[in-house]
Amino acid sequence: MSDNSNRDVQPSCATPVTRPRVITLAHGSGGRIMHDLIQDVFIGAFGGQEKAQRHDGAVLDMATERIAFTTDSYVVDPLFFPGGDIGKLAVCGTVNDLAMCGARPRWMSVAFILEEGLQIKTLERIALSMRDSADHAGVSLVTGDTKVVEKGRGHKVFITTAGIGSIDHGLVISPDRIRAGDAVVLSGDIGRHGIAVISSRQGLSFETEITSDCAALGNPVMALLEAEIEIHCMRDLTRGGLATSLVEIAESANMGIQIAESRIPVSQPVRAACELLGFDPMYVANEGRFVAFVPQTQADQALSILRTHGNSQGAELIGEVTGNMPTGVTLLTSLGTQRPIHMLSGEQFPRIC
Amino acid sequence: MSDNSNRDVQPSCATPVTRPRVITLAHGSGGRIMHDLIQDVFIGAFGGQEKAQRHDGAVLDMATERIAFTTDSYVVDPLFFPGGDIGKLAVCGTVNDLAMCGARPRWMSVAFILEEGLQIKTLERIALSMRDSADHAGVSLVTGDTKVVEKGRGHKVFITTAGIGSIDHGLVISPDRIRAGDAVVLSGDIGRHGIAVISSRQGLSFETEITSDCAALGNPVMALLEAEIEIHCMRDLTRGGLATSLVEIAESANMGIQIAESRIPVSQPVRAACELLGFDPMYVANEGRFVAFVPQTQADQALSILRTHGNSQGAELIGEVTGNMPTGVTLLTSLGTQRPIHMLSGEQFPRIC
Repeated sequence: MSDNSNRDVQPSCATPVTRPRVITLAHGSGGRIMHDLIQDVFIGAFGGQEKAQRHDGAVLDMATERIAFTTDSYVVDPLFFPGGDIGKLAVCGTVNDLAMCGARPRWMSVAFILEEGLQIKTLERIALSMRDSADHAGVSLVTGDTKVVEKGRGHKVFITTAGIGSIDHGLVISPDRIRAGDAVVLSGDIGRHGIAVISSRQGLSFETEITSDCAALGNPVMALLEAEIEIHCMRDLTRGGLATSLVEIAESANMGIQIAESRIPVSQPVRAACELLGFDPMYVANEGRFVAFVPQTQADQALSILRTHGNSQGAELIGEVTGNMPTGVTLLTSLGTQRPIHMLSGEQFPRIC
Repeated sequence: MSDNSNRDVQPSCATPVTRPRVITLAHGSGGRIMHDLIQDVFIGAFGGQEKAQRHDGAVLDMATERIAFTTDSYVVDPLFFPGGDIGKLAVCGTVNDLAMCGARPRWMSVAFILEEGLQIKTLERIALSMRDSADHAGVSLVTGDTKVVEKGRGHKVFITTAGIGSIDHGLVISPDRIRAGDAVVLSGDIGRHGIAVISSRQGLSFETEITSDCAALGNPVMALLEAEIEIHCMRDLTRGGLATSLVEIAESANMGIQIAESRIPVSQPVRAACELLGFDPMYVANEGRFVAFVPQTQADQALSILRTHGNSQGAELIGEVTGNMPTGVTLLTSLGTQRPIHMLSGEQFPRIC
C-alpha cells in the first residue's frame, strides 16, 4: 500500500463538514456521515432505547437465557456479483452480526421490497441462494414479508433480514472489554467484496477475477468460543472496511490500537485493482472478514483455530491494543513510519451491501 | 353495504389468472396473487424452513421459554396520513403481529432504506413518532440499520421492523386450533386505515375526516390472556382486510366461518367514502383491528374485556365457526341471503402499509 499512499490517504482525511439537511449517498457509507446521522437523528429520538445501536446487534436478557438480535437491509447493486448475490449477502451478513455478538445464529426473518417489473425468476434465484446460505450457516428462515412498490420507486429487490442467536457462554463481548496488550487478529485478506461488486457494476474485468469474500462466520467464531478463547471484542468489516471498524472500536473503548501494514493480507489482484481505481483496501468493504481482540497469551491458539476453517484460513495477527494514551488507531507503515487512521469520510461507493 | 353490492362484489370475485412472470403491484396486495407468489417462490425455496410463513410470526422454542419473532416492511405512501405515519405504522404493525401470536411485545429492530434527497427533518419526525409509539406499546427499539439508495431508486423512506415477544402462557394460538362453535370477535370498526391513506394520497377530503385506526394491540390481547380467555386464533386485519384474513384462517383450518353483515361495525364516513370510491370495507386494510376466535362460552367475557381498552372499545361478536362442511367464509347479508367471501383478488390499492 505504500506505493500509492497519496491516493490511499485521500478517503481517510477527516475534513470538517457542515451537517447536511438532506440525505446524501454518503449517509449510507458506513463512515463518519452515517455515524453523525445515527447520532443526531436515531440516538436523539430513540435515546436509551436504541442502546445497542453502535454495536452489531443487541444482546437481550430473557428470563433464563441471553439472546442476540440484529437486523440489516441489503440494497447491493448489482444483485449478482462474483462470489455472491444479494440473497447470500442478506443471510451471511445477519449471521455475521450475530456471530460478532458471540451468539450462535438460530433464526432469521426475511422481508422483501420488490420493484414492480422484477422478473420472478430473478426472485427465485435469490430465494434459492438464501436457502443454500441458511442451510450452510445452520440458521432457519422462519418468518417473512413481501411488499411491492411502483416501477421507479424502488430498485429490483431490497432485502431486510433480522436474526436471533443464542448465547451459551458467560463472556461479555463488547468494545469496552478490550485491554492494553490484547492481540488484534484479522480473519483473512481484505478488500475483495467491495472490489468484486464495484467491478461487476462498472463492467470492469481484471486478469484474475476477484470474487467477494461473502461468507458466514458462525463456525469459526463458535470454534473460538468452544476452545474457551476469551474474546474481548469482535467486529465484521463491512462498509467502511477494516479502518473504520478499528476506529469505531478504539473510540468506543477510548483506547489506542496499533496495526502493522505489512501484516494485513491483501491479495495481489485486489491490490492492483485498488491502485487502478484509487481505493485504499483498508476502507474497502468485506462481507466475510472480522477482527477479534483476544488476550495476547491466546493469540497463537486463536490463529490456529481460525486457520482450520475455510472462511478464516488466511487469519493473521495484525496488531495490538496499546493502552489509552494516545487513543485511536495507528498504522505502522511498511516504510516504518506511523500514520493515524480515521473513519471513512464521505462516500466511497454506494450500495455495496 | 347492501346498497352497493355490485361494486362490493367486484374486488372479491376470484377470476382465474395466469401466473405472471414479472412482479406487479398486485403482488403486494395481500390477496391471492401475493399468496401464490409466497407459495411458488418462497415456500418453494425455503421449504420447511419457512414454516411460519403463513402466520403473522414464528413461535420459537428456546431451551426454557417460548418466543415469537416477526418482521414486516413498511412502504406506505404518503409517509404521513390522518391518524398516523410510517413510523407509527412500523412499530404498531410489528407489535400487532407479535400480539397475534399471543406474545408480549418486548424488543424491536428498525432498518431504514432512505432515498437520496430525503429531508432529514422528515426522518427526525418519523423517528420521534417511532419512539412515542414504542413507549406507548411498551416495546424497546434495540438495534438498527440504515442504507441509502440513489434518487429514483427508492421512495423517501422504507422501514423494516422485526420484533421479538415472550410467550408467558401455555396456549397454542393458530388457525388449526379453531373449532365448530367458536365465536368470532372483531375488535372494532373496519376500513379506516385504507380510506385514510388513499384519501390522503389522492387529496380527497370528506365532510368528516377519516383517521387511520393505526394502534398497538398488545394491551387488549394481554388482557384477554391474563383473564384466561382460551384464544384459539387471532389475526390482525391488514392488507386484504377482514375478508381476506377470515378466508386465510378458514383455508388453513379447513373449516367454515359464517359472519353477519349487520354486526360488522363500519363508521358512516367510511361507508360513504367506500361507496364513493367503489370499495368494499370488508377488503379495506386496517392497522389496529383484529379478530379473535374464542370458545362460545367465553365470548361475552372477551367482549367485555376488549371494550375496556381504547383500541378495542368497539368490539363486536360478528359470527361463528360452523364446522368443516362446507369450508370457507359465508356472509349473511343484511337482506338475509348468504354470499361466499373470497380473498382479495388482484390489487385494491398499493402501498397502504
